[in-house]
Amino acid sequence: MADTVKKLVILGSTGSIGCQVLDIIRSFPDRYRVLGMAAGNNSDLFSRQLDEFKPEYVYQLNKKSPCQKSNARYIALDDMAKLPEADLVFIALSGNAGIYPTFTAVTHGKTIALANKESLVAAGDLIKTTSIHSGARLLPVDSEHSAIWQCMAGESGRPQRLILTASGGPFRHYTQKQLEKVTPEQALNHPSWKMGRKVTIDSATLMNKGLEIIEAHWLFDMPLNRISVIIHPQSIIHSMVEFADGTIKAQLGYPDMRLPIQYVLTYPDRLANNSLPRLDLNNLYSMVFEPPEFDTFPCLNLAIQAMQKGGTYPAALSAADEFAVKLFLEKRICFTDIPVLIEGILSRHKSISKPTIEDILVVADQVKQQCKQIYKGDNW
Amino acid sequence: MADTVKKLVILGSTGSIGCQVLDIIRSFPDRYRVLGMAAGNNSDLFSRQLDEFKPEYVYQLNKKSPCQKSNARYIALDDMAKLPEADLVFIALSGNAGIYPTFTAVTHGKTIALANKESLVAAGDLIKTTSIHSGARLLPVDSEHSAIWQCMAGESGRPQRLILTASGGPFRHYTQKQLEKVTPEQALNHPSWKMGRKVTIDSATLMNKGLEIIEAHWLFDMPLNRISVIIHPQSIIHSMVEFADGTIKAQLGYPDMRLPIQYVLTYPDRLANNSLPRLDLNNLYSMVFEPPEFDTFPCLNLAIQAMQKGGTYPAALSAADEFAVKLFLEKRICFTDIPVLIEGILSRHKSISKPTIEDILVVADQVKQQCKQIYKGDNW
Repeated sequence: MADTVKKLVILGSTGSIGCQVLDIIRSFPDRYRVLGMAAGNNSDLFSRQLDEFKPEYVYQLNKKSPCQKSNARYIALDDMAKLPEADLVFIALSGNAGIYPTFTAVTHGKTIALANKESLVAAGDLIKTTSIHSGARLLPVDSEHSAIWQCMAGESGRPQRLILTASGGPFRHYTQKQLEKVTPEQALNHPSWKMGRKVTIDSATLMNKGLEIIEAHWLFDMPLNRISVIIHPQSIIHSMVEFADGTIKAQLGYPDMRLPIQYVLTYPDRLANNSLPRLDLNNLYSMVFEPPEFDTFPCLNLAIQAMQKGGTYPAALSAADEFAVKLFLEKRICFTDIPVLIEGILSRHKSISKPTIEDILVVADQVKQQCKQIYKGDNW
Repeated sequence: MADTVKKLVILGSTGSIGCQVLDIIRSFPDRYRVLGMAAGNNSDLFSRQLDEFKPEYVYQLNKKSPCQKSNARYIALDDMAKLPEADLVFIALSGNAGIYPTFTAVTHGKTIALANKESLVAAGDLIKTTSIHSGARLLPVDSEHSAIWQCMAGESGRPQRLILTASGGPFRHYTQKQLEKVTPEQALNHPSWKMGRKVTIDSATLMNKGLEIIEAHWLFDMPLNRISVIIHPQSIIHSMVEFADGTIKAQLGYPDMRLPIQYVLTYPDRLANNSLPRLDLNNLYSMVFEPPEFDTFPCLNLAIQAMQKGGTYPAALSAADEFAVKLFLEKRICFTDIPVLIEGILSRHKSISKPTIEDILVVADQVKQQCKQIYKGDNW
């Protein structure tokens, strides 16, 4: 039995990240206890998870009580995010649904494992300012940000540059013409990572890397012009940090989200886990690098520009992207329409400077309505 | 002016490493003072160095007094290695000449920047045991060991594996027949690193990597079976460390010895230095990896076997290698004779277990005599 059992709250337990968090907990049953679990509409899976992990607190979207078999106490999502007994709040919610719960956890000074990048994209300034006052800690889960965090261990000086690696997605080197015809099925078939649907499409458009630039900016207090992106199709180097003297540190590993998930759970320790894959250096032949194709994948620059403009532009970007991805997955727009829709939203956006959390949530809602109008308009 | 000026002793100031140490000191004149300098036979260069850096203490091989112009006090090499006022003793001596001065510095509890791998190869056990009692600190300078040291910063757990990268030298993929005909000029033309003559030939035979395995074993207290070698011709990744959870950290940089030299001087800080080259990520196309060619380059296994046998085998290996390299550079034996001569020495070596420093120096001397006998014998 470990000295202390860490009590976890998992928001989004039935999603791709949530399931992988539970996988790691299964490997170390003496170290973690699931205090609370929140999920969306996947009731069958959630019911099985409740049976297995027996949390004290439970929340499910659109439900007012827990499923019959569970003795758990049903509480609001917001209350779950700020549970006083929780040692770590794991925010594994997908998309913009993560914004408010993250803000709540930050406001209450929690230690947060943040797998939801949209919250920092939409409300980064607010979340950072609030965390300084509340003492909340934001620990990264994204493989890139986890890599940067790991590379910064033991280094006292401010890094010179963060270098985010990107696989380039399934459509690297595609022409505009080819991109127009790609299907959701093709876009969901990521070459190296097994992830949720939203982030997989974001990877295919490179929007994911744009959101990650913004996330890195807030997590590591780094100006945008000192964050680079490099395409590395093998996804072996998960990101790099350059220091003042020109030294670069890289974190490498098998591309499996359970590795950064385990790190955020066991940090500052590292634990052997035989159920996780390891990079076999005997199978390491070559690692290739190339610059991103900014023209073919305009989402990357859209994200950078939204961040440069500040205010609620990033929130609008994130909301527009979420809606555009949904339309694409429903086969209602084509792949190359995604950046067009987002650009349309950003071009008409009226930004609010120093937005409150309410401002940000209102923007997200407004953008959704605007997207619907544009989509119904003559342009489509 | 920096808070404290670090007082340095540099043993081997006119060699390749020594000159590069002085280069770094020129970049940070407020931070370092050269307290003592020792050199070999390059009197012209040494004289210019003494003029420029004005050390208080000086030693030169085969001389009994410093050159006329200097006001420095002439002391023995051994006294230089243990100067009480020195904050850091930089051992930049080439080959087996580094063994005794390193041992002296270790015995006197000095902080040592160790650029001489032969001392740890020949006397690693003794040096490690002595350093535990004396409190001496051994800081690595070799790019590979510096990389490992940097990757271990901020990590509390014992690494799972050390992965030394090797360029493969100028003769990678050569056949045995081609190797028989290579000249010293070809062997001295290293594809990525500018180094001294001995280490450059050792890189061409892969003996250098064998010596580095032994060095890593002692520096990082790592069993031989947890130290791997991987050929990486671009010399961008300088080495890697694998941790318990499968994470691998790598240190990357432009292949220039001044970078690890600066790190050992500024550690734990990192300083910007515009006179040093930086890796340009825009020029990073691919990094290639392959297993070492053990059969074509038998020196690597000879080193591993000598370490496994222990006792004075590594000392004999190191002495035999130094002599063989000398004969090759003098065009008296061919490239492929180097491992044959070393193997001949090892096969007849009578090892001493738990050797004293005197035992080790005697072995080095005996091996030299044996090499001369073999070389004069009918075999050649």
